[in-house]
Amino acid sequence: MRIAVMQAEAKVLGIERNLDAIDQAAQRAAADDVKILLTPELFTVGYAPYVLRDSLDVSALPDVRERLSRIAAQHSIALVYSLPEVTDNGWLITSTFVDHQGEQLAHYQKVQLFGPEEHEVFIAGTNPPASFEYRGTTLGMVICFDVEFPEVVREASRRSVQLLLVPTAMGRGYEQVCTRLIPTRAMESQLFIAYANHSGTEAGFELAGTSVIAGADGSILAQGGPDAELLAADIDVSTLATIRTEVPYLAEARVDLYAQWSSGTSAGK
Amino acid sequence: MRIAVMQAEAKVLGIERNLDAIDQAAQRAAADDVKILLTPELFTVGYAPYVLRDSLDVSALPDVRERLSRIAAQHSIALVYSLPEVTDNGWLITSTFVDHQGEQLAHYQKVQLFGPEEHEVFIAGTNPPASFEYRGTTLGMVICFDVEFPEVVREASRRSVQLLLVPTAMGRGYEQVCTRLIPTRAMESQLFIAYANHSGTEAGFELAGTSVIAGADGSILAQGGPDAELLAADIDVSTLATIRTEVPYLAEARVDLYAQWSSGTSAGK
Repeated sequence: MRIAVMQAEAKVLGIERNLDAIDQAAQRAAADDVKILLTPELFTVGYAPYVLRDSLDVSALPDVRERLSRIAAQHSIALVYSLPEVTDNGWLITSTFVDHQGEQLAHYQKVQLFGPEEHEVFIAGTNPPASFEYRGTTLGMVICFDVEFPEVVREASRRSVQLLLVPTAMGRGYEQVCTRLIPTRAMESQLFIAYANHSGTEAGFELAGTSVIAGADGSILAQGGPDAELLAADIDVSTLATIRTEVPYLAEARVDLYAQWSSGTSAGK
Repeated sequence: MRIAVMQAEAKVLGIERNLDAIDQAAQRAAADDVKILLTPELFTVGYAPYVLRDSLDVSALPDVRERLSRIAAQHSIALVYSLPEVTDNGWLITSTFVDHQGEQLAHYQKVQLFGPEEHEVFIAGTNPPASFEYRGTTLGMVICFDVEFPEVVREASRRSVQLLLVPTAMGRGYEQVCTRLIPTRAMESQLFIAYANHSGTEAGFELAGTSVIAGADGSILAQGGPDAELLAADIDVSTLATIRTEVPYLAEARVDLYAQWSSGTSAGK
């Protein structure tokens, strides 16, 4: 299954312009036989927590979701998009998967907020990584900082995820997350990971690009440069059985022993 | 504190020759003001599980340990060496830390055996990563495949380890463990890692070199090439407080939530 990662600069609060950019990426990707298009964290509204808190018209969000579904349906391509979600308890950072008919199949709320802005503006989710079936593949979703915690990706793997879809907003200077950490996560938990970052500058925040699609053996199937681009790779989940046998990270992880250690029941033997 | 990593080809069952090589490395390292010399997995006997099982004279091991202690004391340098340990239940792969007077401060038994040879010849340990004080720093030890499991390094970090010392025997073709995984482990669990590999070929097994000393921010402080060499780096644990504040991986990891997920108590909310 061919997937694509949209790497681009969002215009903060420029929803029309950002929807256009997603529409164009969906059109290009569909023409390349891509089945799933992954877009960056909060791309439709821009990655700018304080600006969103102060100036986003949240009453527009249901219509924005409708239009994103229509983009998917129009180009007959599945789409992962990320938006704020407004609840009685506060706002969350979320990602949503809509299929090639624009039907919502999964929704995820970010668990690991990053930095003071996110902690001030958003509340953190508590649900585990999304896990759902699409075109014969078990997909998963987490967001940005979530993926930097190995336990989160382990949980996705425990839920049978074969391809983990990760919108992000990663700043310049942290490129090693894209070049080293993401391939390591994929290798150690033996699943494919697609990680879609912004490029350019949003509300003064310089974003790193360097988006990546990593193989379940830790290989890099596609990696972006610093500027806007559309990355694509073919994901063959039929290779997972061989990968998971060759180096049996999942089969041989001594999870019960680790749990004993952290509960203190086997220490100091 | 300056540390060094010995990267070299061992002679399988060539204990005299391998002790000489460690002695020379200790001499060179001590002259460079190195306080701790880390040597590769099973270096003194060679990395060759079947050959060791069939031909190693285990009655010689206590004397080998004595001589390794004397090397440390003679050059006034702490030494991490790795040997098989013979118990009533079977053999284990171990590492031992002796201080600059040759006194043993810590001992560790490998928990994650790698591949069919190790599984046939050795039994796996169950104790958590070693954690102990030396010259004002909290050191830890694990071995080779152990470090590829993020939970093992998390446990070391939970035990306050600031510098994790890892003898290894990593084959060619898996260099990404050295170049991507080790720096990722160091970054995500916010400790320094030194990872000492063999180079050359032992009992037909081609070893990757590429040993690494990684900073707690994921930086690479030293990285070996494919051939024998002595790597060194200065470890400044006073930087840990800043590193752990800048990106608070340890402080913000939602360990209770992860535990709920894996026990199934918060799924499907």
